[in-house]
Amino acid sequence: MAYSPAVQELMESLRCLPGVGPKSAQRMTFALLQHDRSGAGRLARALQTAAESVGECRLCRNLTEADLCPLCASGRRDPGVLCVVENPSDVQALEDATDYGGLYFVLKGRLSPLDGIGPGELGLEGLEARLVAGEIREIILAVSPTVEGEATAQYLAGMAAEAGVEIARIAHGVPLGGDLDYVDAGTLSHAFAGRSQYR
Amino acid sequence: MAYSPAVQELMESLRCLPGVGPKSAQRMTFALLQHDRSGAGRLARALQTAAESVGECRLCRNLTEADLCPLCASGRRDPGVLCVVENPSDVQALEDATDYGGLYFVLKGRLSPLDGIGPGELGLEGLEARLVAGEIREIILAVSPTVEGEATAQYLAGMAAEAGVEIARIAHGVPLGGDLDYVDAGTLSHAFAGRSQYR
Ligand SMILES: [Zn+2]
Ligand SMILES: [Zn+2]
Repeated sequence: MAYSPAVQELMESLRCLPGVGPKSAQRMTFALLQHDRSGAGRLARALQTAAESVGECRLCRNLTEADLCPLCASGRRDPGVLCVVENPSDVQALEDATDYGGLYFVLKGRLSPLDGIGPGELGLEGLEARLVAGEIREIILAVSPTVEGEATAQYLAGMAAEAGVEIARIAHGVPLGGDLDYVDAGTLSHAFAGRSQYR
Repeated sequence: MAYSPAVQELMESLRCLPGVGPKSAQRMTFALLQHDRSGAGRLARALQTAAESVGECRLCRNLTEADLCPLCASGRRDPGVLCVVENPSDVQALEDATDYGGLYFVLKGRLSPLDGIGPGELGLEGLEARLVAGEIREIILAVSPTVEGEATAQYLAGMAAEAGVEIARIAHGVPLGGDLDYVDAGTLSHAFAGRSQYR
């Protein structure tokens, strides 16, 4: 073993990052120690701060170290429209790609009763209370068209119907410019079944 | 901006890692904060310890937090053979691929007088003193066949000749199983010029 303990430990710790195998971990370790000690120090502090302080937004459950995330805390978003997504990363994807001006609700999962993930585990009672209280006039579903995603969508549609809240779902299908033979079979089958009249 | 300051700072800090662009940094941030807080904490500690404590081995200049690296400190390596490499990562590559049993000397660069990198900057006086003192009976050059690498090799060959020390250089050429049309032109030209008689 040519590595000293501190070098070895850094190399192994880097493997917790997704997509980082032994070779990348090695390359990262040498790059940091030979050329970027200050970057390594900054990353160490950022990791420690985030790992200790980041929790979830009280309203939308996006990742944040504050009580409310920047979107929920902003006075410039329409609190009457709620886009329901599965993961915190979906929020940023929609923010980057659209000019959506409402708020979000992060499910942090999908309904999957067999795995013990029911409406309670996803925090849907809190959402239902907000619907019943009349805070929200429109829900936009941005959950994935998998079996669990469908079950989640159905459940939320039921909640919305009872509360008399409008509900929409984003379109799923073949990506723009996507060659049909490069699109996965599930997406293609979904897009085919969901065809609409062409005028 | 949908990210809170701590999340944003973590995402930006991860960019100091080689090969990590905005998308990977985002994916890493969400993975750590949603699923691996303990991994994030461990990585933070490893980065801080390594950035603060890792220096270079007094003898070979490999990365280590101790006075001597594990190889130089080991009693089981032959101190009479010295393999000269350019970077600390080369040491591990040779350790992984060969059964070499001597020690190393890490140049941490190549001779490049135009850039102000002379023998002094590479610490070659110290190496020369060890050659003259008779500590070393054989040098193996594992420096790259670039212009600067060649200059470095020539300089070391001169030192070895004066001290009456044997010197060898690892072979450079087309990789085993390498299709000629996938090999870069420099390597191919080097391999062609360096052809040997075939019996
Ligand atoms: Zn929020
Ligand atoms: Zn050493």
